[in-house]
Amino acid sequence: MDEKDAARSNSISPAVIHRLPRYYRLLGEMKRNGKSRTSSRELAAIMGLTASQIRQDFNCFGGFGQQGYGYNVDILLDGLWKILGLERQMSAILIGVGRLGTLVSSYITDGRFGYKLIGLFDNNPALQGKVVDGLAIQNDTALEEFCREHQPEVAVLCVPKTSAAGLCKQLTQYGIRAFWNFSHYDIALDYPDAIVENVHLSDSLMSLHFLVYRNQEENRDN
Amino acid sequence: MDEKDAARSNSISPAVIHRLPRYYRLLGEMKRNGKSRTSSRELAAIMGLTASQIRQDFNCFGGFGQQGYGYNVDILLDGLWKILGLERQMSAILIGVGRLGTLVSSYITDGRFGYKLIGLFDNNPALQGKVVDGLAIQNDTALEEFCREHQPEVAVLCVPKTSAAGLCKQLTQYGIRAFWNFSHYDIALDYPDAIVENVHLSDSLMSLHFLVYRNQEENRDN
Repeated sequence: MDEKDAARSNSISPAVIHRLPRYYRLLGEMKRNGKSRTSSRELAAIMGLTASQIRQDFNCFGGFGQQGYGYNVDILLDGLWKILGLERQMSAILIGVGRLGTLVSSYITDGRFGYKLIGLFDNNPALQGKVVDGLAIQNDTALEEFCREHQPEVAVLCVPKTSAAGLCKQLTQYGIRAFWNFSHYDIALDYPDAIVENVHLSDSLMSLHFLVYRNQEENRDN
Repeated sequence: MDEKDAARSNSISPAVIHRLPRYYRLLGEMKRNGKSRTSSRELAAIMGLTASQIRQDFNCFGGFGQQGYGYNVDILLDGLWKILGLERQMSAILIGVGRLGTLVSSYITDGRFGYKLIGLFDNNPALQGKVVDGLAIQNDTALEEFCREHQPEVAVLCVPKTSAAGLCKQLTQYGIRAFWNFSHYDIALDYPDAIVENVHLSDSLMSLHFLVYRNQEENRDN
């Protein structure tokens, strides 16, 4: 089973999928530092996992090394690059070019993470024509024609929850199935076949608040 | 066991902790829409969980309702507010006031999520004195004195990985134990007692890329 065949299988857990970018970052760092070999034990120590977990993760993708001999950093990095499909630039549009959208667009313009931003949309008339990252902002009303013509693969949603449901319905009709979702609208609930990555900054803040508060209360009691 | 006692116990899983903000958001919406009662079944449908999971989650915090009678939205919302500790504004400092830091600061300035931004720091001399969200940016060299005087509870790291390790070492010495971490530095690995919430935008993008790529490869084969 080669890497691609392995990556195609549906058996890869979300936890492994979310570790792939960490492996990729870590190995890139090793390479930049002139390191040519590593081991599951070394990777485990840096990742906070066990060596056996590391080997299991890599086995999901067909191996990469022989037990006892460790891994060649270049081969591993190249394998992860292929698995993540980073040689393919995916076309993306971003909707909602406020403060958040403007920041988020910078992550998909420079090609680093395998995306190419091809369109920016906002329903605020004051923003029409304003250029961000080399693209003129268009009105949401232009979405249908734009999607028909350019068939973007990914939509990045930086809009409030109230707008997100309607937008998703539209975008799904226009053939978009993958979303980088910063809104609080739960896309997967209404579109179980959609491919969704959610980023909820305020949820992360509140979870942190809970943890700190609980810790303070515990210390107060002791 | 009242809500506070329950929240103090260490037995709450990370999954439950990360669902708390979702419950809180959802119930806030129900209240704004004039809804006064809900049920585990209704919440389950909206959250994409089972009714039994919802009841188990709430039981972690001492209940909130009687089986068969459902939940009073106001009581639930008030309980979650207390559990999340949102009546307590926590003091926070933010380090790294670039494009990302400027955006992130807006999440902790308005008090919505239980934080109060009290200091902004950046090691770029060109930014010294620039005012963002009502605060003048200070140099990182001012951190020690600032922390001694104001004892911030949370540090928000919007710096590159290369700066993050040194910063964490300093901040830990200055008494900070909680981090909202946007850097790729793995704080928990070096400081197992630290309270950390990580936000890794590029990892999220790469995971999405993997999922979309895999899906496209599968469809090509079929």
